[in-house]
Amino acid sequence: MDFFFKPRGLAIVGATANPKKGGYHILYNVRQGFKGKIYPVNPHYPEIDGIPCFPSVTDVPDPVELAILFVPAPAVPELTLQCARRGIRGVIVESGGFSEVGAEGQSYQEALRRIAAETGLRVWGPNCMGIIDTAARAVFSFVSPSIWEDELVRGGVSLVVQSGMLSGGFLMDAMTHGQAGFSKVCSLGNKVDVNECDVLPWLIGDPDTEAVGLYLESFADGQRFMEICRESEKPVVLLKGGKSPEGSRAALSHTASLAGNHGVVRGALAQAGVIEAADFKEMIDLCVGLAGAPCWSQVRGGRIAVVTYTGAGGILSADFMEGTGLSLADLSPATLGTLREIYPPWMPPGNPLDLWPAMERQGPLRALSVALKAVCADPGVDGVLLHAFVGGAVSYLDLKEAAETARSVGKPVFCWLLGRRSQVQEFKESARQFRIPVYGELSRAVTCMAALFRYKQHGRDPGFLCPDLRK
Amino acid sequence: MDFFFKPRGLAIVGATANPKKGGYHILYNVRQGFKGKIYPVNPHYPEIDGIPCFPSVTDVPDPVELAILFVPAPAVPELTLQCARRGIRGVIVESGGFSEVGAEGQSYQEALRRIAAETGLRVWGPNCMGIIDTAARAVFSFVSPSIWEDELVRGGVSLVVQSGMLSGGFLMDAMTHGQAGFSKVCSLGNKVDVNECDVLPWLIGDPDTEAVGLYLESFADGQRFMEICRESEKPVVLLKGGKSPEGSRAALSHTASLAGNHGVVRGALAQAGVIEAADFKEMIDLCVGLAGAPCWSQVRGGRIAVVTYTGAGGILSADFMEGTGLSLADLSPATLGTLREIYPPWMPPGNPLDLWPAMERQGPLRALSVALKAVCADPGVDGVLLHAFVGGAVSYLDLKEAAETARSVGKPVFCWLLGRRSQVQEFKESARQFRIPVYGELSRAVTCMAALFRYKQHGRDPGFLCPDLRK
Repeated sequence: MDFFFKPRGLAIVGATANPKKGGYHILYNVRQGFKGKIYPVNPHYPEIDGIPCFPSVTDVPDPVELAILFVPAPAVPELTLQCARRGIRGVIVESGGFSEVGAEGQSYQEALRRIAAETGLRVWGPNCMGIIDTAARAVFSFVSPSIWEDELVRGGVSLVVQSGMLSGGFLMDAMTHGQAGFSKVCSLGNKVDVNECDVLPWLIGDPDTEAVGLYLESFADGQRFMEICRESEKPVVLLKGGKSPEGSRAALSHTASLAGNHGVVRGALAQAGVIEAADFKEMIDLCVGLAGAPCWSQVRGGRIAVVTYTGAGGILSADFMEGTGLSLADLSPATLGTLREIYPPWMPPGNPLDLWPAMERQGPLRALSVALKAVCADPGVDGVLLHAFVGGAVSYLDLKEAAETARSVGKPVFCWLLGRRSQVQEFKESARQFRIPVYGELSRAVTCMAALFRYKQHGRDPGFLCPDLRK
Repeated sequence: MDFFFKPRGLAIVGATANPKKGGYHILYNVRQGFKGKIYPVNPHYPEIDGIPCFPSVTDVPDPVELAILFVPAPAVPELTLQCARRGIRGVIVESGGFSEVGAEGQSYQEALRRIAAETGLRVWGPNCMGIIDTAARAVFSFVSPSIWEDELVRGGVSLVVQSGMLSGGFLMDAMTHGQAGFSKVCSLGNKVDVNECDVLPWLIGDPDTEAVGLYLESFADGQRFMEICRESEKPVVLLKGGKSPEGSRAALSHTASLAGNHGVVRGALAQAGVIEAADFKEMIDLCVGLAGAPCWSQVRGGRIAVVTYTGAGGILSADFMEGTGLSLADLSPATLGTLREIYPPWMPPGNPLDLWPAMERQGPLRALSVALKAVCADPGVDGVLLHAFVGGAVSYLDLKEAAETARSVGKPVFCWLLGRRSQVQEFKESARQFRIPVYGELSRAVTCMAALFRYKQHGRDPGFLCPDLRK
């Protein structure tokens, strides 16, 4: 798979000088960051934007390991064959018009399948949006060049998706909102040859990837997929499309996927340690929460200290934990003693730990600092759910110190954050640096924290996913 | 209740000149917008920031209908009694230190209860954050004055909350993120006298209120609450805190609430047409979706056209609809004929309607305009779930036209929105003007749309909440 991600030489078949066309976007995006040799291929141009353009892949000089194809479907099989003959190792077919549109397209896809099987050329797609690698700044995709107007936000989340949206508009949303940073985003399309069972192991072995999120409408090889996930040393989060009868019918016309009976699949996924996401953004939120899994050596049970500035938030935190395997930790007498020192006498500290009275007495920064250290040091606490607020002149948290406290004891601190929009963004960006997961909806924070604890428990007891971590 | 919201004359007992204290915040906030007479009361100051300050409420001139009390709990009963003797009609006690902190506080609260019962003075609180009225710009609360740095965003959502956070930090989050505009926000605290059964009917009768969201930890009078909701002509959304055993215990120390067994309550709420929210932001999202209920005269079943630019979004929309009462509409032959005119020949339109190929041919604006009009005109369609994207130079939607199309046929259009952060904000603000509900997570959009359809169905068949609108 290396030649898909780090090709020595890249041909772009269907490159064009028309800035409204996808064939232009691909060339533009590749030129923005890819450091290797780039060969536009199109018989109608001698050059495009100053780079020599070749009439066919046959004319492209060595070395060339990968070709991106963006030409009408009927022309794809013949051009793919040319690539195989030229000695190219992989093609990414980004054009649509294959199995997803009926019988004629199906015949082109079948031809592609045969070429891959007979020549050994690996075929990625068709009907896909290729690869985005934020670390290498390699964008092998016709995604709108406007993606470069914001930074490509680097991070530990990699995606494998059977949908262009998730490597286009969705990615722009997630990156500009500070939801996550990404490593590799791989859009698979119709999966005629290359599928999740090829790409997922590569990502698990990728040192820049800490967690993998997948959006799939079908499994190319369910049994192999489960094996890969079971053996994975990194968290795998799956969002499955087409779980309902109507969704399944819709999947057929999207990527020609037979979605199958999800009831049967669910148990196997749980056995394999796969974390199922319920929605697009939840998939990313789960990845962010799970990405730090190796840091939390002291995660034993699911006994959580809830540190809050709002009684209502504490109550709902407890409500949301019910049935997830998380529970409110019993704080030790020593911890309660330390906490009493920052509280007014009329208010006894507890868990949920409503810090408001202590914040009023000590100032929020000091109250939070003392409280976080105290609960993290408590042997009966396995993790902290921290409610944070930013707005006006008030910053309720020293993120760096909080991260250091968490890291020093090997217990995760997850954040639920409210506040003024401008400051929320700053906080999120800072928290990403310090690797503190941040969520805007409280139930989401609990869901992601519970997933981390289940994952850690599962890691110690392979083949069995424990729903309740309490002894 | 009028004197709580529009008092002729307002005394602020415990007003201070120290800008770090809540008693200063209250005075500051009241002065920012309240148009009536303001009387600070504090024996230590002859004046505060240029307004005459009175040694006691007894010295305050007429007219004075309302007093806000922000003094230590032990002093509250005597000062409340003074207010009653002075002829003041209501007090809002914003101080804490009552039932929520133990036996001594309990005695002060009991004294307050007796004064209210014996004198007829209405007592709001204690341990609350009072009232925010964005239309009148009347902020009777010690909420941080930084709330004024952003606009108080006006809108049709009113809240009744048993938590300060929801009328403070949460509100700043919701308003600055463009989630909703608000009418009145009422923080009830310990509910010694005034409770949801007083405030909710007033809000239902308030012409600026279109939907009411409540966060409650206990019901002051469950039976009366159900009656009010059953008779309400406006949607009522409830988020209940303390539904789990651990959450229930936490509620006891927050607002001294006995949360009760929610399993028993759930059925009664459904019978009364109350929409239950699962989390804080979902409560607001539901209110936004339901606020437009009277506009949608043609809502009959739950047959939804999903108009999307992403196959994956279409599939998950169908998945999320399962079991909610919503279903994918069967588009009529006439509608499909109209749509075929904007599609390329290789792609047959369907539902979910993946518009991407049509957008590429026609441009997104035209494709969306034609598609929206066609599906809205289809007698087999009851509502539209529209997937929108904003980013780069691309705007995929003329919001004004979409709103007019929806309004002209009496069918709701709900939006799921992704995109670049800066443009997402613009879109949300514009959508709020045009009263198109917008959601960032797809499942949330479906949840809120399903709630609207259930609510509309319920409105026609009082006393029975139909879970499935399909015949």
